[in-house]
Amino acid sequence: MKKLLVFQTDFTYKEGAVAAMYGVVKSVDPDIEIITATHEIPQYDTWSASYRLYQYVDFWPKGTIFVSVVDPGVGTSRKACVARTKNGYYIVTPDNGSLTHADRYFGIEEVRQIDETVNRLHREDNGFVSVFHGRDLFGYCAARLASGIISYEEVGPAYDVSQIVRHEIHEASVYEDRIEGMIEIKDPNFGNAWTNIPLQDFLNFGFRSGDKVHTSVYRYDELIFDREIPYYDSFGKAEDHSVMVYNNELNKMSIAEVVGNLCADYGLDFGPEYKVIFRREKDL
Amino acid sequence: MKKLLVFQTDFTYKEGAVAAMYGVVKSVDPDIEIITATHEIPQYDTWSASYRLYQYVDFWPKGTIFVSVVDPGVGTSRKACVARTKNGYYIVTPDNGSLTHADRYFGIEEVRQIDETVNRLHREDNGFVSVFHGRDLFGYCAARLASGIISYEEVGPAYDVSQIVRHEIHEASVYEDRIEGMIEIKDPNFGNAWTNIPLQDFLNFGFRSGDKVHTSVYRYDELIFDREIPYYDSFGKAEDHSVMVYNNELNKMSIAEVVGNLCADYGLDFGPEYKVIFRREKDL
Amino acid sequence: MKKLLVFQTDFTYKEGAVAAMYGVVKSVDPDIEIITATHEIPQYDTWSASYRLYQYVDFWPKGTIFVSVVDPGVGTSRKACVARTKNGYYIVTPDNGSLTHADRYFGIEEVRQIDETVNRLHREDNGFVSVFHGRDLFGYCAARLASGIISYEEVGPAYDVSQIVRHEIHEASVYEDRIEGMIEIKDPNFGNAWTNIPLQDFLNFGFRSGDKVHTSVYRYDELIFDREIPYYDSFGKAEDHSVMVYNNELNKMSIAEVVGNLCADYGLDFGPEYKVIFRREKDL
Repeated sequence: MKKLLVFQTDFTYKEGAVAAMYGVVKSVDPDIEIITATHEIPQYDTWSASYRLYQYVDFWPKGTIFVSVVDPGVGTSRKACVARTKNGYYIVTPDNGSLTHADRYFGIEEVRQIDETVNRLHREDNGFVSVFHGRDLFGYCAARLASGIISYEEVGPAYDVSQIVRHEIHEASVYEDRIEGMIEIKDPNFGNAWTNIPLQDFLNFGFRSGDKVHTSVYRYDELIFDREIPYYDSFGKAEDHSVMVYNNELNKMSIAEVVGNLCADYGLDFGPEYKVIFRREKDL
Repeated sequence: MKKLLVFQTDFTYKEGAVAAMYGVVKSVDPDIEIITATHEIPQYDTWSASYRLYQYVDFWPKGTIFVSVVDPGVGTSRKACVARTKNGYYIVTPDNGSLTHADRYFGIEEVRQIDETVNRLHREDNGFVSVFHGRDLFGYCAARLASGIISYEEVGPAYDVSQIVRHEIHEASVYEDRIEGMIEIKDPNFGNAWTNIPLQDFLNFGFRSGDKVHTSVYRYDELIFDREIPYYDSFGKAEDHSVMVYNNELNKMSIAEVVGNLCADYGLDFGPEYKVIFRREKDL
Repeated sequence: MKKLLVFQTDFTYKEGAVAAMYGVVKSVDPDIEIITATHEIPQYDTWSASYRLYQYVDFWPKGTIFVSVVDPGVGTSRKACVARTKNGYYIVTPDNGSLTHADRYFGIEEVRQIDETVNRLHREDNGFVSVFHGRDLFGYCAARLASGIISYEEVGPAYDVSQIVRHEIHEASVYEDRIEGMIEIKDPNFGNAWTNIPLQDFLNFGFRSGDKVHTSVYRYDELIFDREIPYYDSFGKAEDHSVMVYNNELNKMSIAEVVGNLCADYGLDFGPEYKVIFRREKDL
């Protein structure tokens, strides 16, 4: 097994935190390969941290160890953990909602709380530091795990998977006259809204490329978007600046303004408070 | 030969696309080393993609494979290809203008269309996906090539080099009374305008450090910049905030506002529509 | 020893400079591992370059070679050098203040000026280039050193450590009635002001978590911040939007506006002109 760690954080590269964290990894074992997934998760946004893991984890070789540090609760009693997913990956993260989608889509097999007496960096000059767990705890523990210094069991004591902190999800459901779901994330480059409604459900419901889809978005109970728009199986088929339904790279139904920014132009955002309903015209 | 891939895209790190693409590479062969050239090519800007390859490709070891994914036409009939340059590099890219400068400056020896029946990632759950060729096609095919799973010939069928999609270039030309060229790119950090006029032509024409250069820039037929400015062979010789001609890191003549932003302050941009003329005062 | 180079620059990823520099490294020796510390040092800011090295260098394995290219004086007579620190690291950098903090906190054992006749990239087509030393000089020389092609002594002639260009530092000092220091850097993500006053001095002075600290900041002689704020040893103990003193990840006293941006909201910045004084209420 290749010694490899994949990192995502909200640190940005504006300061030296990433370099300090990576240095700790290399000090544990210079043979560990470090891959940057991203350091631009929106600040404190554990929902996005969770979603991004879902977006890319299972494209990696089985056994890959991911480190996710979006940690608004550093210094509080939130747990620091390493989860093992049912599809064979490890995620080193604060237990603060960042495991929501991995749990929902991959399943969590086991979770262990990092034993800070063993798996935390202690240096003479940083005895008091309690603010940078990316460097001193998550990066350090992950490096020990990747290098084989500790086994998964030696991360620390297991705790019940049911105790993992999860964000609320509004699950996708197919009804006779509609499909419901939520805006699960937005594509920050293009402003597209990605729902959690699977393409397969959408096709089973009867929609075909070229069909009109009555699309409603509610924020809590307020209807904020309500339009008849086409579904296309390719962007090439849509007019510029038109609004359309398409299936995204994870085969979830998504809404785009072609060569535009749907979320900005229509005030859409993501999270369980953004409910989406797809209907046929004839069922209105 | 080292197993190495160098990536440039317009994905940014704001979402998980880079990490998914890199995961596919490592799943093909964990020994492939991944280098990020940049993920900040301006969105959809195939001209910049093309120019950036020219800027850095030939500083790499011969045989290096580059992956460039700026792909506004994903899902249309544009070809996906791997080009082999005359100076010994491989470029995996949509054939959409991204090879313009590699063709102009290095020459393209051969180009092959990626055979999607073989060199495209198929997963049970992504049978329908047609929107993320960086992950499923370009990254995947490049990884197979870098790892030696396929030879260059096994990428897919060759097609005629003359069919490669090229952006228009206004070539640099030396006349008796002037040198003409275009603004080929701008330096986005400093706002300098980089022309395609070689330093050697400029020196052969007779200009020497300290000389005044009458510099005109046209946007299409409109004269938008027309000034007598000095040429210096070093920034150290110019006054702050003065406008000057210098030779850039690729030995092309460039125009800068020292400790300023020429392009922003004077409304200059790049592309064949921005024609540049350097003249001596006496020839006006 | 692992062949490893760690880079920081102000190049950004908006253009191809990073990729050209990394290509030169790989052309010297494809086995050198390249780590990006950051390419987002603020433009021309040699103070930040210096501080960021201090922030992360000593978390890396002894012997690691760092390349720092923030080089406003490229093309002038500033020296290009490789410093060896007393704690066992190498820093390849223009000698322009970028070594200030490494010198202050680690000590510089020896410094050598890069011999450009040997350790500079010469290509047929770049004989005249004097603007991109990151690619042609610093990256190239560092790669030769990392690969073992040259020894440290072969970098070039040593010069007196006392000649190194240093920025002014307002040193932290403990007095009977106060502790003085400076704002040494700001945390650009959170807007926190990081002083150079060590936690240990602060505790020795008598402050304990929960104490009120009279905090004054002067810009030159002007008092620009003057407030009674609490010191907490954890962010978890503070109210949102309150202003507090805490110890940062390098165990220096820092000032934060919780879930806010202190520097933006109070007009604070960093450098020797920003003097900080901590006092007890009773000593006012």
